[in-house]
Amino acid sequence: MLGAGMHHRTQDFRNVFLAVLADLKQVMGTANDVLVLVASGTGAMEASVTNCFSAGDRVIVCTAGKFGERWVEMTRAYGLDVIVLEAPYGKAVSAEALEKALTPDVKGVFVQASETSTGAVHDVRAMGEAVQKTGAIFVVDAITGLGTMPLYIDSWGLDIVIGGSQKAFMVPPGLAFLSISPKAWAHMERAKLPRYYFDLKREKKYAASGESAWTASTALMLALNEALQYIKSIGMATLIDNAEQLARATREACHALGLELFAAENPSASVTAVKAPDGLDSGVVVKEFRQRFGAIIANGQGEMKGRIFRIAHLGYFDVADLFAVIAELELILYANGIPVTLGAGVAAVQRVYAEIAITDKTTDKITGKELANV
Amino acid sequence: MLGAGMHHRTQDFRNVFLAVLADLKQVMGTANDVLVLVASGTGAMEASVTNCFSAGDRVIVCTAGKFGERWVEMTRAYGLDVIVLEAPYGKAVSAEALEKALTPDVKGVFVQASETSTGAVHDVRAMGEAVQKTGAIFVVDAITGLGTMPLYIDSWGLDIVIGGSQKAFMVPPGLAFLSISPKAWAHMERAKLPRYYFDLKREKKYAASGESAWTASTALMLALNEALQYIKSIGMATLIDNAEQLARATREACHALGLELFAAENPSASVTAVKAPDGLDSGVVVKEFRQRFGAIIANGQGEMKGRIFRIAHLGYFDVADLFAVIAELELILYANGIPVTLGAGVAAVQRVYAEIAITDKTTDKITGKELANV
Repeated sequence: MLGAGMHHRTQDFRNVFLAVLADLKQVMGTANDVLVLVASGTGAMEASVTNCFSAGDRVIVCTAGKFGERWVEMTRAYGLDVIVLEAPYGKAVSAEALEKALTPDVKGVFVQASETSTGAVHDVRAMGEAVQKTGAIFVVDAITGLGTMPLYIDSWGLDIVIGGSQKAFMVPPGLAFLSISPKAWAHMERAKLPRYYFDLKREKKYAASGESAWTASTALMLALNEALQYIKSIGMATLIDNAEQLARATREACHALGLELFAAENPSASVTAVKAPDGLDSGVVVKEFRQRFGAIIANGQGEMKGRIFRIAHLGYFDVADLFAVIAELELILYANGIPVTLGAGVAAVQRVYAEIAITDKTTDKITGKELANV
Repeated sequence: MLGAGMHHRTQDFRNVFLAVLADLKQVMGTANDVLVLVASGTGAMEASVTNCFSAGDRVIVCTAGKFGERWVEMTRAYGLDVIVLEAPYGKAVSAEALEKALTPDVKGVFVQASETSTGAVHDVRAMGEAVQKTGAIFVVDAITGLGTMPLYIDSWGLDIVIGGSQKAFMVPPGLAFLSISPKAWAHMERAKLPRYYFDLKREKKYAASGESAWTASTALMLALNEALQYIKSIGMATLIDNAEQLARATREACHALGLELFAAENPSASVTAVKAPDGLDSGVVVKEFRQRFGAIIANGQGEMKGRIFRIAHLGYFDVADLFAVIAELELILYANGIPVTLGAGVAAVQRVYAEIAITDKTTDKITGKELANV
C-alpha cells in the first residue's frame, strides 16, 4: 500500500489494475465482468440502481435489517416503484415469498447475501433460481457475503454481486467492486436513470486497457492486489471455511455460556449476532471489550442497539483471535454479574477445533489454526 | 496511513474525522461547511450537480480543456440546460464573457480554477464577483487549484470549492472534499435531481458527530490528517508560494531553453504545460523521463497528446526536484537532436532561487529550498 506514489496512468499501475480485475474474477468464481469503483460499498449499490433501471421501474427489495432498508431508501430515492418484502430482524425473506411476488412486470430484485446488521443470511441460491426464470435481474449485496459463504455467481443467476475492500478482502475501506452478468448489461441498454461518476459502461471501456474512468485509488488498489495474492495462495474456499468454522465455534461457545443467538435459524459466517443477557445492555459489552482488552466488537444498529452484540469472523481472523474473544466475553459477563462458568465458552471453541483439526488427520481440510500459520 | 485497522465507528476515528474537517476549513480559509466523500474528485463534482440542481435548470459551464469538458458532459448527463462558454485550450474563459452570459435565469456556473489539462488558470476572483451579484451559485473545481493559488473562498463568492486528496494535499487518491456556502445549501432545498450515495445533507448530519454516512476510507483519512498537520505547520500560504516559485522557475527555464509555454498568458502554478519542439512528439519526452530517469511527467490529454508535456509543481515538490527535472529535460532534448545549451535551463532555475532566497535575506519568505528542509 506504500507504493502510493504510483501514478494511475502508467503501465506499472495498468498492470496492477488488470491483475486485480482478473484476480477478483477468479476468486469470485465468475465469468461475468468485474469492475472496481472508488467508493464505499454503498456506491456500488447505487451504481447497480442507476445503471440498470429507469424511474418508475417496478422492483422488489427483500429486507431483513439495516442494509436491506438501505436498498429500500436508495431505490425509492431514484424513483423506482418498490415492492418491499420484509422479514423481522434476525430472520430472512424466504425464496417462496419472493417467487410469489415475482410478477412479469418486476425488472429487478435486491437483497443482502449476508445482512451484517443481524448476522443472518438469505438463501440467494434459491432466490437466484426463481429470479433467473424471469426477465428481472438479481442484485446481491455481498459486501460481507463474499469470502464468508459459497456464492456460485454464474450458476445461481446472481446478475450483480457487490463487494467491498474492507471485509473478507482485508484491505482498508474505500474500494467497491461488482460483477455484472450479460443480462444486467442488457438491462443497461434500456436504463434511463442519470449517472456519470458511477457509469459502468464507461468504466468497462476504460478497464479494457487497464484504467479507470476517474482517478484510481492507487494505494488501495495496490493493497487489494496483495490481499488477492494471499487469497489465491490459500484458496477462496479456505477463506470461506475459516469463517464458517469460526462462526460455528462462536455459536457453540454461546450455547455453552447460555447466550442466545439472534439469527439462530440462518446464521451468517461473517458475523455472529448474540442477544445480550437480561439486564445487561449490549453497549456495555462492546465498551468493556474495548476498554479492558482493546478489542473491537460491534453493537446492534438502529432498533437493535443495546440488545445485541456482534462478533466478526471474516478475513484474517483466526482461532487464536476467537480464543481471546470468548475468554474476554466470559470475563465481561462475570464482571457484570451474569452467571458464567469461566472457560466453558473457550472449551467449546477448543472442541470444535479438535474435532476438525485433531481428530480427523486424514482430510486436508484447512482449519482456522492452519490458516493462521499461512 | 498504516493505522488502517481503525474502525470507522469508534471514538478514535471520530476524533480523526472531526480534526480533518476542521483542518480542511482552516487551510482552505473558509467559514463554509467542508465535507469529505469517498470518491475521486469527479465524485465531488457530481455531488455539486445532483445536490444543487433540478433537471432543466439553466447553468453555464466555462470550459478551456478536458476538465471543463467533464463539467459539460456531467451537467448534460443530469439533464441540465447547459450554456457552454468555451475558450481554446491553453487560454481561459474571461470574466467579462461570463458576466455577459449571466442572465437572471442562470442557476449555477461551473469552472476549473486551474485547468490541469492545459496548465491554465481561470480568474475565479473576477468570475466569483460577477456570479455573487446573481442568484446563481459558483461551483469551482479546485482539485489542482487548492494549495497552488490563492483562493479566498468566502470573500470571492466561491460557493462550492472542490478538492482531492491526491494533489497539493499529497495523499494517495480516493478522497474528495468540498466546501459549501449557505447560498449553495439554500439551492439544495429546491434541488430535485435524485441522489443517495452523494447526499450532502445526509453527510452534513453525520459529520456533526464525526462520522460519514457510508463507510469512511479510514486509511486515507489518517493519511490526510497527517498531511494537514504538515500543511498547517508550514502554512497554506507557504505551500502556495512554493508551487508559484517552482512554476515561475520552470517557465524561466523553458525560456532559457527556447521552449514555448502552452498557457503563457495565464499559467497555473500547479502544472506547467510546455509545447514539444518541432519534430519531437511530447510522448517521447514523457517516455524518456520515465525510462532514463524514473521520473513521471505527463503527456497532453485528448487532442493535446503528443503536442505538450506537463511538469507538476504542487505539494511536496521542491527546488531539488526541479533542478533534476530541468537537467533531465535538457538531456532528453539533446538526445533527440534538439539544439540546447546544457545547463542553461538549470541556471535559470538557480537564478530564480538566488533572487528569492539569497539576494534578499531580509524577508522571511519561505522558498522551495527551505520548504524542502522542513
